[in-house]
Amino acid sequence: MSNLVNEFNDYRSKMNEKLLADNNLVIKRIFNLDTNAYAAGALDVKTKELLGLVASAVLRCDDCVKYHLETSHKEGVTREEMMEAMGIATLVGGTIVIPHLRRAYEFWEALEEAK
Amino acid sequence: MSNLVNEFNDYRSKMNEKLLADNNLVIKRIFNLDTNAYAAGALDVKTKELLGLVASAVLRCDDCVKYHLETSHKEGVTREEMMEAMGIATLVGGTIVIPHLRRAYEFWEALEEAK
Amino acid sequence: MSNLVNEFNDYRSKMNEKLLADNNLVIKRIFNLDTNAYAAGALDVKTKELLGLVASAVLRCDDCVKYHLETSHKEGVTREEMMEAMGIATLVGGTIVIPHLRRAYEFWEALEEAK
Amino acid sequence: MSNLVNEFNDYRSKMNEKLLADNNLVIKRIFNLDTNAYAAGALDVKTKELLGLVASAVLRCDDCVKYHLETSHKEGVTREEMMEAMGIATLVGGTIVIPHLRRAYEFWEALEEAK
Amino acid sequence: MSNLVNEFNDYRSKMNEKLLADNNLVIKRIFNLDTNAYAAGALDVKTKELLGLVASAVLRCDDCVKYHLETSHKEGVTREEMMEAMGIATLVGGTIVIPHLRRAYEFWEALEEAK
Amino acid sequence: MSNLVNEFNDYRSKMNEKLLADNNLVIKRIFNLDTNAYAAGALDVKTKELLGLVASAVLRCDDCVKYHLETSHKEGVTREEMMEAMGIATLVGGTIVIPHLRRAYEFWEALEEAK
Repeated sequence: MSNLVNEFNDYRSKMNEKLLADNNLVIKRIFNLDTNAYAAGALDVKTKELLGLVASAVLRCDDCVKYHLETSHKEGVTREEMMEAMGIATLVGGTIVIPHLRRAYEFWEALEEAK
Repeated sequence: MSNLVNEFNDYRSKMNEKLLADNNLVIKRIFNLDTNAYAAGALDVKTKELLGLVASAVLRCDDCVKYHLETSHKEGVTREEMMEAMGIATLVGGTIVIPHLRRAYEFWEALEEAK
Repeated sequence: MSNLVNEFNDYRSKMNEKLLADNNLVIKRIFNLDTNAYAAGALDVKTKELLGLVASAVLRCDDCVKYHLETSHKEGVTREEMMEAMGIATLVGGTIVIPHLRRAYEFWEALEEAK
Repeated sequence: MSNLVNEFNDYRSKMNEKLLADNNLVIKRIFNLDTNAYAAGALDVKTKELLGLVASAVLRCDDCVKYHLETSHKEGVTREEMMEAMGIATLVGGTIVIPHLRRAYEFWEALEEAK
Repeated sequence: MSNLVNEFNDYRSKMNEKLLADNNLVIKRIFNLDTNAYAAGALDVKTKELLGLVASAVLRCDDCVKYHLETSHKEGVTREEMMEAMGIATLVGGTIVIPHLRRAYEFWEALEEAK
Repeated sequence: MSNLVNEFNDYRSKMNEKLLADNNLVIKRIFNLDTNAYAAGALDVKTKELLGLVASAVLRCDDCVKYHLETSHKEGVTREEMMEAMGIATLVGGTIVIPHLRRAYEFWEALEEAK
């Protein structure tokens, strides 16, 4: 099942490379900012990753959720913490978040298996 | 084509079971509320399912649309009624609803075949 | 408090008139379709107004909610029915719908007073 | 300027009371869940409030943002932490979040003045 | 890779035919309007297709993006122009647009290969 | 009526200044990018402003719409061109865009009067 993780990362890397090679300044700077915004500051990296996860979940972006699940997992976020964050996202965003929650949970399992 | 229906239901059941087994209180209560909200009250079940369908369609959640198409179908909603509801959804939500309308129509056909 | 209703309707009428006088074909046809979609068909007007209300609520459009509250009220929708419809909208759309629910409830009170 | 805070809280309290007195079960349970979801658990209250803030900001719900700004402020969130959270929200949600950021900043100033 | 284009067009055509054969008046008129809105007027077709592309991208509708990429490509939009339009969409709509940008770029490559 | 324009610009300038003075790097860079993305490139400024307008309209951000109406007006966009762009936005985004269209039209009139 950890193929879920590899497939996601492979496609993402391949296309990001192409996008950056295309040299559109606005796109490149947005990618750059994305790295900056999650760096440690007044808030630590783990909190920021959880913020990115919840933002992605309420906006119902599966790929963004997967990305932040993976980085959260690397930062040592536990399953219980992840579920509390996703619980807030489902409450704020409503039951339309549930299909994304199912896919998020499946991806989290794949991350744990891949470890 | 009725595989569309089975695949959807199988994945949905499997992941819902896992989510509920995870014991996050907020998630469990939201699932519970979901059952309550569509029960007969001042409005009958059929009307409530159509409300759920239109809410899902304008928010462009394919899985939520499928779920409410299936329950609407069970409640005896006709194709003509479903299409009028989806027509309102497409008008209110705009032409970005159309790709979801295509998939909804395909799923409805699968529901009719599976009967 | 029924000023809420009059102010809403006055501004809406004034600007709709200007928009239609502007003679943009696409805009005019969309306005036209809006009238057609809520006419009686396989589904009755009351059901369609409730569908419009829930679609407007989950998309968090206060003015659209007000419009459908007013037409629903004219169609004899009861407060209990309206609240069940809004309950589904709040569950599907999440707690971000709650501020709109507060304003909807206030507008419904104004509609009842104005009667 | 701290009138901003009082006016918001007064209207919110008044309408919430009315909504709860209306006795719609689904609405009441959603309000209830809202209290539960932000209670301390695997994640602490401060982190949860920031998650609620970012979810509200990317979904562009001014009243929800104000609510979580106020609770965050009470939990001791600093201006710098709030701004880092809102920076993530603006990056994830795009420049359409900026008008909400302006109003959030104004409300935060009112919270600081009111202290 | 140009299978991406064919598969998209085949499914789209097949389902649109079924939807139109179903004879729901509202749906049929919306399809009709869709043709009208992008015809030359005060703005030329190319500009209108770019407007449709950006609207689709910020609303994160992959199929709508594909459709407007194809029509833009036919109208002679260059890759650089497409990327500038998508850059605006990503800035306005936020980083949640990025996964759609990856798929858009892949589809554009397929369009260029198919030529 | 041109007070509409002044009030909007005054509040916007005042709060932007405060936000930038706050020195959050991510926020500052996003503001910066916003200037860059609409500069002339493969697409001219007028086309880019119309793209920003339509993106803002389908995402239903009144302040963003006002901003791009003002810049479009300065770039010589005619009322007919603006209406065609807004027609596309209303078709793609659905009838929930209409309340924003009413306010956009009112703002455009104020811009014309202010000239």
